[in-house]
Amino acid sequence: MTSSQLDTISTLDYDRQTRSGLPEIVYAESKTPDQVAQILAALYAQTGTALATRASPEHYEVVHAALPDAIYHDLARLVSVGPPLRQPDHTEPYAAIVCAGTSDLAVSEECALTLDWTGYRVKRITDVGVAGIHRLFAAEDTLRQAAVCVVVAGMEGALPSVVGGRISCPIIAVPTSVGYGANFGGLSALLGMLTACAPGITVVNIDNGFGAAAAAHRILKQLVATPSTA
Amino acid sequence: MTSSQLDTISTLDYDRQTRSGLPEIVYAESKTPDQVAQILAALYAQTGTALATRASPEHYEVVHAALPDAIYHDLARLVSVGPPLRQPDHTEPYAAIVCAGTSDLAVSEECALTLDWTGYRVKRITDVGVAGIHRLFAAEDTLRQAAVCVVVAGMEGALPSVVGGRISCPIIAVPTSVGYGANFGGLSALLGMLTACAPGITVVNIDNGFGAAAAAHRILKQLVATPSTA
Amino acid sequence: MTSSQLDTISTLDYDRQTRSGLPEIVYAESKTPDQVAQILAALYAQTGTALATRASPEHYEVVHAALPDAIYHDLARLVSVGPPLRQPDHTEPYAAIVCAGTSDLAVSEECALTLDWTGYRVKRITDVGVAGIHRLFAAEDTLRQAAVCVVVAGMEGALPSVVGGRISCPIIAVPTSVGYGANFGGLSALLGMLTACAPGITVVNIDNGFGAAAAAHRILKQLVATPSTA
Amino acid sequence: MTSSQLDTISTLDYDRQTRSGLPEIVYAESKTPDQVAQILAALYAQTGTALATRASPEHYEVVHAALPDAIYHDLARLVSVGPPLRQPDHTEPYAAIVCAGTSDLAVSEECALTLDWTGYRVKRITDVGVAGIHRLFAAEDTLRQAAVCVVVAGMEGALPSVVGGRISCPIIAVPTSVGYGANFGGLSALLGMLTACAPGITVVNIDNGFGAAAAAHRILKQLVATPSTA
Amino acid sequence: MTSSQLDTISTLDYDRQTRSGLPEIVYAESKTPDQVAQILAALYAQTGTALATRASPEHYEVVHAALPDAIYHDLARLVSVGPPLRQPDHTEPYAAIVCAGTSDLAVSEECALTLDWTGYRVKRITDVGVAGIHRLFAAEDTLRQAAVCVVVAGMEGALPSVVGGRISCPIIAVPTSVGYGANFGGLSALLGMLTACAPGITVVNIDNGFGAAAAAHRILKQLVATPSTA
Amino acid sequence: MTSSQLDTISTLDYDRQTRSGLPEIVYAESKTPDQVAQILAALYAQTGTALATRASPEHYEVVHAALPDAIYHDLARLVSVGPPLRQPDHTEPYAAIVCAGTSDLAVSEECALTLDWTGYRVKRITDVGVAGIHRLFAAEDTLRQAAVCVVVAGMEGALPSVVGGRISCPIIAVPTSVGYGANFGGLSALLGMLTACAPGITVVNIDNGFGAAAAAHRILKQLVATPSTA
Amino acid sequence: MTSSQLDTISTLDYDRQTRSGLPEIVYAESKTPDQVAQILAALYAQTGTALATRASPEHYEVVHAALPDAIYHDLARLVSVGPPLRQPDHTEPYAAIVCAGTSDLAVSEECALTLDWTGYRVKRITDVGVAGIHRLFAAEDTLRQAAVCVVVAGMEGALPSVVGGRISCPIIAVPTSVGYGANFGGLSALLGMLTACAPGITVVNIDNGFGAAAAAHRILKQLVATPSTA
Amino acid sequence: MTSSQLDTISTLDYDRQTRSGLPEIVYAESKTPDQVAQILAALYAQTGTALATRASPEHYEVVHAALPDAIYHDLARLVSVGPPLRQPDHTEPYAAIVCAGTSDLAVSEECALTLDWTGYRVKRITDVGVAGIHRLFAAEDTLRQAAVCVVVAGMEGALPSVVGGRISCPIIAVPTSVGYGANFGGLSALLGMLTACAPGITVVNIDNGFGAAAAAHRILKQLVATPSTA
Repeated sequence: MTSSQLDTISTLDYDRQTRSGLPEIVYAESKTPDQVAQILAALYAQTGTALATRASPEHYEVVHAALPDAIYHDLARLVSVGPPLRQPDHTEPYAAIVCAGTSDLAVSEECALTLDWTGYRVKRITDVGVAGIHRLFAAEDTLRQAAVCVVVAGMEGALPSVVGGRISCPIIAVPTSVGYGANFGGLSALLGMLTACAPGITVVNIDNGFGAAAAAHRILKQLVATPSTA
Repeated sequence: MTSSQLDTISTLDYDRQTRSGLPEIVYAESKTPDQVAQILAALYAQTGTALATRASPEHYEVVHAALPDAIYHDLARLVSVGPPLRQPDHTEPYAAIVCAGTSDLAVSEECALTLDWTGYRVKRITDVGVAGIHRLFAAEDTLRQAAVCVVVAGMEGALPSVVGGRISCPIIAVPTSVGYGANFGGLSALLGMLTACAPGITVVNIDNGFGAAAAAHRILKQLVATPSTA
Repeated sequence: MTSSQLDTISTLDYDRQTRSGLPEIVYAESKTPDQVAQILAALYAQTGTALATRASPEHYEVVHAALPDAIYHDLARLVSVGPPLRQPDHTEPYAAIVCAGTSDLAVSEECALTLDWTGYRVKRITDVGVAGIHRLFAAEDTLRQAAVCVVVAGMEGALPSVVGGRISCPIIAVPTSVGYGANFGGLSALLGMLTACAPGITVVNIDNGFGAAAAAHRILKQLVATPSTA
Repeated sequence: MTSSQLDTISTLDYDRQTRSGLPEIVYAESKTPDQVAQILAALYAQTGTALATRASPEHYEVVHAALPDAIYHDLARLVSVGPPLRQPDHTEPYAAIVCAGTSDLAVSEECALTLDWTGYRVKRITDVGVAGIHRLFAAEDTLRQAAVCVVVAGMEGALPSVVGGRISCPIIAVPTSVGYGANFGGLSALLGMLTACAPGITVVNIDNGFGAAAAAHRILKQLVATPSTA
Repeated sequence: MTSSQLDTISTLDYDRQTRSGLPEIVYAESKTPDQVAQILAALYAQTGTALATRASPEHYEVVHAALPDAIYHDLARLVSVGPPLRQPDHTEPYAAIVCAGTSDLAVSEECALTLDWTGYRVKRITDVGVAGIHRLFAAEDTLRQAAVCVVVAGMEGALPSVVGGRISCPIIAVPTSVGYGANFGGLSALLGMLTACAPGITVVNIDNGFGAAAAAHRILKQLVATPSTA
Repeated sequence: MTSSQLDTISTLDYDRQTRSGLPEIVYAESKTPDQVAQILAALYAQTGTALATRASPEHYEVVHAALPDAIYHDLARLVSVGPPLRQPDHTEPYAAIVCAGTSDLAVSEECALTLDWTGYRVKRITDVGVAGIHRLFAAEDTLRQAAVCVVVAGMEGALPSVVGGRISCPIIAVPTSVGYGANFGGLSALLGMLTACAPGITVVNIDNGFGAAAAAHRILKQLVATPSTA
Repeated sequence: MTSSQLDTISTLDYDRQTRSGLPEIVYAESKTPDQVAQILAALYAQTGTALATRASPEHYEVVHAALPDAIYHDLARLVSVGPPLRQPDHTEPYAAIVCAGTSDLAVSEECALTLDWTGYRVKRITDVGVAGIHRLFAAEDTLRQAAVCVVVAGMEGALPSVVGGRISCPIIAVPTSVGYGANFGGLSALLGMLTACAPGITVVNIDNGFGAAAAAHRILKQLVATPSTA
Repeated sequence: MTSSQLDTISTLDYDRQTRSGLPEIVYAESKTPDQVAQILAALYAQTGTALATRASPEHYEVVHAALPDAIYHDLARLVSVGPPLRQPDHTEPYAAIVCAGTSDLAVSEECALTLDWTGYRVKRITDVGVAGIHRLFAAEDTLRQAAVCVVVAGMEGALPSVVGGRISCPIIAVPTSVGYGANFGGLSALLGMLTACAPGITVVNIDNGFGAAAAAHRILKQLVATPSTA
């Protein structure tokens, strides 16, 4: 594809990392496999690394044909090509990524692997939903020392409220579309997190592990000596 | 008012207590003060005691003029006239009524006072929302020994999920319309309770402390030696 | 799978039965077949019996390969492995499970078979919706003698209101997603049950037969001499 | 007001009765008292009788000053001026107007008095909601002989389903905005009636007793020897 | 299948036609093909004719194997077996079935063929939506002489309002789920019809051509000399 | 108020007319009367004319004290001070403003008077809703010669569909919050207009007569010889 | 197919172009391939050119068999047969079609190709969403000189607000169903555009590129010397 | 009030500041004036300073009588008594609080004054909505140097998307309930912010300026040498 062909489908924003901290990352879901492959190839050629979210196996097949180094993270539905944006020091501040249940892992892994790719540290705390709240307390040291905490939960989305009442770092809540009927595609968890009684909890879009990673990145970047971005 | 006048506004169901365990109780909110007074007077004349929910001061004023023994419980918005339906033994099973915040007290008192009027024991646990979850744990003995637990919460409605993971008796969750915007009149708490990850939680209508009392009554009645109803 | 591998996807809560009356039960719908098989195997190894809800044939295929004793209940979408948690005495109190129409059977069977697995008695009353309300009256003896009544209905969800006006035991209503357009995935039945005019009806999530079973279990457990759980 | 002044606010449709069976009737709610008075006066001058719905006491005050014969029906919020459109024979087919609870009387009276004004027969059956369904059965003769049945109910709106399973005449269901929180302004009753399991029930707008009367009028008109309209 | 097997899935209501005018008709959509076949066979054996709505080709395949006389109406998704319930006289009152667009034909045919099966007369007026309102006027004679008018429309559902302003017989509006995004599964047409400015329009569930036929049947039955039902 | 005081509540955009065709116009509804008065005074001082929408009598009282030339248009809830932005030639293209019912006049007058203030021609067609569609046809000449047509309707919002099928100029539909319950604050009319079957209809916000005027202004400006703006 | 067969599925409106500016265009989505083919063939035979929107490959296969000249535009899901309605002069006013992201291309191409088919000029501006707002500014000359601007955006739908604050021509906003969970099928973008703070933005249905083209056509037609329609 | 009286309405959480960074702050809206006064007095007695949000003048009147040092911030609806929690150094990192319009000031001031009370630095940028986006660019230096940015907007809530594309610090978006009809109580802005195309934006509840302050506090606390809390 020539660049003029690319122009008919996209206006790439190569300056985005300088301005807002992260380079352009491709949202694959509503794009054809060809579109995703073309945009990833252009970003990879320009910057040496690229990432797509919400990629299906069909997307990956076409991307992989064009970019043999591309890797597919199937649970998280990510395609990456190239190295992380930076290499974290193992003593740096880290993000704790807490997930309420096994069913929420696809979303929490989208978050964790995106943060890996941006080059920041992550610690995972898995399956500690409020129906067995002692499991959360067992992990409280890891939580308390985190620089930012991402909490992923479906159903009623109650976990961020409990976490928020126990630690003082920034908390980013991610509602998921997991649950019986009245979850309504994530609405129950979304409303639950927005109305959390513990003050200072912020929320991103339903199932949007990527958005949580980007928000955590904005916080972590200020806390390390040499951030990857201007 | 003659009985034929009453017939134009109501068909009283004097047999309801025999069939379904509770006598007819008057929902005042959409009725005129005159209608409420007439229906309460008829029930009181027939059975010796009567109760109305969602009564405003305007309702009470007219009722009180007709029935000087009527009492107004202003926080709970109840009007009662006459004694409780029975007298509980102080060793009987009791209902624990747990309320997440001071703002939920109007609803939890509607529940507690209705149960008082039906003649069953109540223990109150107040302001133990999940943002300070240790407060709930401090009351856990009272919770564990309850025969039924009513949990009243607004905002995200997370408290029943935590309670449900810690005790094994029946749990009745009551969502309230308390909270900033995305509470949407109680919708956030309602959906949160319906999708609670702790299994076996049941839910009643928004702000419906009366409904929770009626449901608790159905459970308690089976556990005492001499229930008030057939 | 080693236990450390299991740790990456789940934090099992082996103490849950002691605390809240039921052991951990697996919600299969948002999990991969491998995840479900690994968690069921761990629970089965620890406790000798395990259950998963919302399991597809694809889930069962992988589970069955790992646990040859696993059984698939296709209408109810349950996978069980191992015996029930206890053996009920045939004179014990029982749950009546009432279903409005044949279309609601998948949900009512999820409830009935889950209660079977927990070891409590069940009596089924099938296809007695309010369009032919005499069918309900024909079963009224079975209803009146029940210790708890689960009512499963789609469309307008009116059946619990009628049942609630005729019997005095606890009533758990389960809305289903059955019906032409304005059922909106179970919303019509859900709202109908929450606003039921018969007092004391409680509601669980849409299509959540399992949740109703867990709620019925909380009630039945108090009424039998030797419950299965602490 | 001169007719040219009237033209700036309204284009009256004097031919409506010939075309569609009912003359123009004024919806007062979103109009100023002056507008309502002007339009009623014009209709009254032209046809000798006029009706307004959803009229407040403020509307009536201005109307009454202009049209001293105007009458206010406060529960139903109707203003009428002039005689009914026709005089029914007392053996004619009639509409049964069934109302689930005393709280629904404002809406059912809007329906009944509108039909009175159109000159058709009405029989009222009041406060026979499904929580005491035997009350409905007591009135079944009146129902079975009706030419059309209007059923007014709030909360879960279950009454039309039960009625629809027992009689064969046309049924018009009117949802009302009566009930605790999850009634959501009549939505629960509306959805319940639209998804009623008894076939052949039709529904009008929330709290729209007038609309039900107009629909019943379309049916009754075909069944009488000398209808009022072409 | 023995009758005791049938009892485990259904409680047939053979008396329904006497009570409410139509026999039991099978809603196939949430039933398995086996369930539909068993119920149709039982109804057919008892009464000599039977009908199922919302039947898929998979349903039909199993039904046809059991009942070789069964016929599939694919656009309307109906399965019938046996003759109509009665034979109309060609001078009897008829239902006009008006459909706004070709896309609404599946729903309007569900209505028309159901009325055919009940044995009442139908006249079809097709593709006369309000974007070319003169097409409706061209059919106005057929409309004016109808005893009842069913109007089927998707998108904004405006057609019943226009029809309602021009004719005086009963009007049953059927919203369909046809249209670009903000149709929201029929919600736009449903709300449009409920709020129609022409008085006396009644509404049935989204895409529910069957429900409209049942409602029309309730009206037509009163207007013919020898109805099929008591 | 000094300009530095004004800076604490507003950053005025004096260049807006050059860029986007209209000067800044004040939305009063969520502002205090003082804020509205200060902003209007600043705009009036700078440009010689100013306008506020959604102004209450309380807003006007404070504005009038500060700006004695201010005029209140009570039905339309507008406050203007100073002359129109330009003077139209009486042969210029005009906007037809069509309103479905008298109840919609407040919104259609907000539109008409805003266009008056911008200096473009307006012709009003009032109370021609689809329940009496012949009234619209009587005004069809005025419609056909319009350069742009604004159609204001509540309830089902059907009028734009009919208009859109008969004329070819740009059509701007304005849904209003007028109607019985299922209008849901204008939602029924909004969805009806968005899904209109007549192609090429565009929609503005509920009750937003001002927005429709601004949209009409964007069209008219291109059709006159000397527009008021760059 | 004979014309009488066609009459059973459609009432074609051959006069539509004269009245409302565009001929009848076929909405394929809810029609069978046979229905689409028959209607397109009839329109093509009558007028020499025809267009269908929302056509799937299955629709095209049947259409192409009947009309070998038919062309499928797969991204835009259009089928056309025959030439454009007119040939634009290259100096004529044009529509700018602005699309926020690559994911919105299917909708913006539906708009662009429909306008091509109507014979009006189009300039495309692609992938200039507000996260990199400088990309929009780079295209501002093309925007400023446009006669009408169509803005297509999913997610939060913010682009029309920014465009609306910078240019003065008519703006038609098209919300798309692109985005993570809380896009809710386009609802977020739809509400965002309806409530845009820049005045004078109009909105069409979700994903309705065709509707935007029809609206743009109504505007462009007035600005060219020899429009294609009366 | 004795402490045992206080116990009947509240279980104060004096340890909250140590755990989660902020002391308990009183949500006044659903509490009676007496309840608010009692709780504020207890907190003030214990810690020397206290704050209530969503306080009405009626709340303040009772509080002021009990605590004469209490101050009412009427636009922000806050009541404070006692000094800020700490005193910031004027070179510390600060929060930029950006508000889209004058109508959003009540919410942005709730945020700013709460942060003032917690003792952190704030810079305000007022009335820079996207309809005049150059106003935002004029303030870009203040934005770029902020440690965290709170963006408050009603209507379509587009401002955070634009801000998010230009700066790299954490962004907290606050939707407000400001706007014409389809704002639906803040829903349009809420959904717009949740689906923002600029990555890494987080959202709090509608009109919840306090929640945004608490979230900003969690971030700022990590960036200063001597935070006020453990």
